[in-house]
Amino acid sequence: MTGRLIVFEGIDGSGKSTQVRRLGERSDFDVKQPGQLFLDYKHERVRGLAKDLDFDATFQFGATGVGEAIRSILLDPDNGQLDDRTEALLIIADKAQHVSEKVRPALEAGRTVVSDRYCASTLAYQGYGRGLDLGLLAEIMRFATGGLEPELTVLLDIDVETAMERLGDQKDRIEGAGTGFYQRVRDGYLALAKQSPDSWAVIDATATVDEVTAQVEDVVDNWLRNP
Amino acid sequence: MTGRLIVFEGIDGSGKSTQVRRLGERSDFDVKQPGQLFLDYKHERVRGLAKDLDFDATFQFGATGVGEAIRSILLDPDNGQLDDRTEALLIIADKAQHVSEKVRPALEAGRTVVSDRYCASTLAYQGYGRGLDLGLLAEIMRFATGGLEPELTVLLDIDVETAMERLGDQKDRIEGAGTGFYQRVRDGYLALAKQSPDSWAVIDATATVDEVTAQVEDVVDNWLRNP
Repeated sequence: MTGRLIVFEGIDGSGKSTQVRRLGERSDFDVKQPGQLFLDYKHERVRGLAKDLDFDATFQFGATGVGEAIRSILLDPDNGQLDDRTEALLIIADKAQHVSEKVRPALEAGRTVVSDRYCASTLAYQGYGRGLDLGLLAEIMRFATGGLEPELTVLLDIDVETAMERLGDQKDRIEGAGTGFYQRVRDGYLALAKQSPDSWAVIDATATVDEVTAQVEDVVDNWLRNP
Repeated sequence: MTGRLIVFEGIDGSGKSTQVRRLGERSDFDVKQPGQLFLDYKHERVRGLAKDLDFDATFQFGATGVGEAIRSILLDPDNGQLDDRTEALLIIADKAQHVSEKVRPALEAGRTVVSDRYCASTLAYQGYGRGLDLGLLAEIMRFATGGLEPELTVLLDIDVETAMERLGDQKDRIEGAGTGFYQRVRDGYLALAKQSPDSWAVIDATATVDEVTAQVEDVVDNWLRNP
């Protein structure tokens, strides 16, 4: 495995998808050029479809056919009884398929993979947010991904109130889950970043989009220069 | 939790569903009477629909709406690329939902639950059969089921050749997966039974259906008399 994996994390409204898209638009990256940037994972958000997805979709990825089907289960209002553990296992099953079908082959081909969300999302949302056991979630994800860890995780940190303002019409996604839930998710992300300072970069995402982009470029450029 | 959980296990063609149905037909059990027998799990097989299902269905249950949707993913020929880990996680997600929505409420209402397959199937098929890590699978299932274990597991043991003969037109299900795969599954079941002799009963399922039923009744009656 010669490629490198970089992950963007943060609560809904933190600007992850915008920053991932901007990174892909940089002229010094060619998304079709092996060895350069490979944009993937939650690609539907990168394509600007986020506004069509409801709250649950922020946990889903759907970069594979299996992942699309899993997302359908999670979004189906008839499945309101969905157990928290079932939800977590379905989300992790999507990761297993995505790593197997997309991420690992790209890394093995020497490509750099940028992922909009990865395992830390599940720790933050299902672990810190919903209260499922963090150690068990981490172990299940090691099983699912074959232990594939990102080299760099960029956390776009933002307070829940500002994130809600940014989401505008989508803010019912956050309100539906409760601001307390999102506060736990944000705190969870910050705790994860503190545990792994060498591989996590925390960026203040309350700044303007351009300012955040500048910080992201600094972090990513520094990382690319220091393999 | 006052009810009790009894599980039937065995490779395809071992006669599990037949024996579970016969147990439900006994006049001294009333499936509608709390405190008596509650037939559930893989109910579509109990209802005799097994012949409509292909090989993958033997791993699936579909006793809940979520489970039905998961089964659809596993049976979809377009998902031929399904990673072994994704498959295992989807199967375990079905268990989480089934326990949460069906089994645990029934047990809490004091009912005896008879399940056609449970976690041992996943250890046998995905662990021993496909080679996934047994300890990790067991840990993920403890997470999924909240640690719910059967009090009694009845293993209907049968050699692969006889099982194939019995399956008749369905034997391509076994041939598709390979007899070597089924041999590993059978050996896995026997290893699991050996590890827990107090809670497993192994029955020779090569005998006639009536002889097996008599043995099953002996085992279950003895178990019901000794809470």
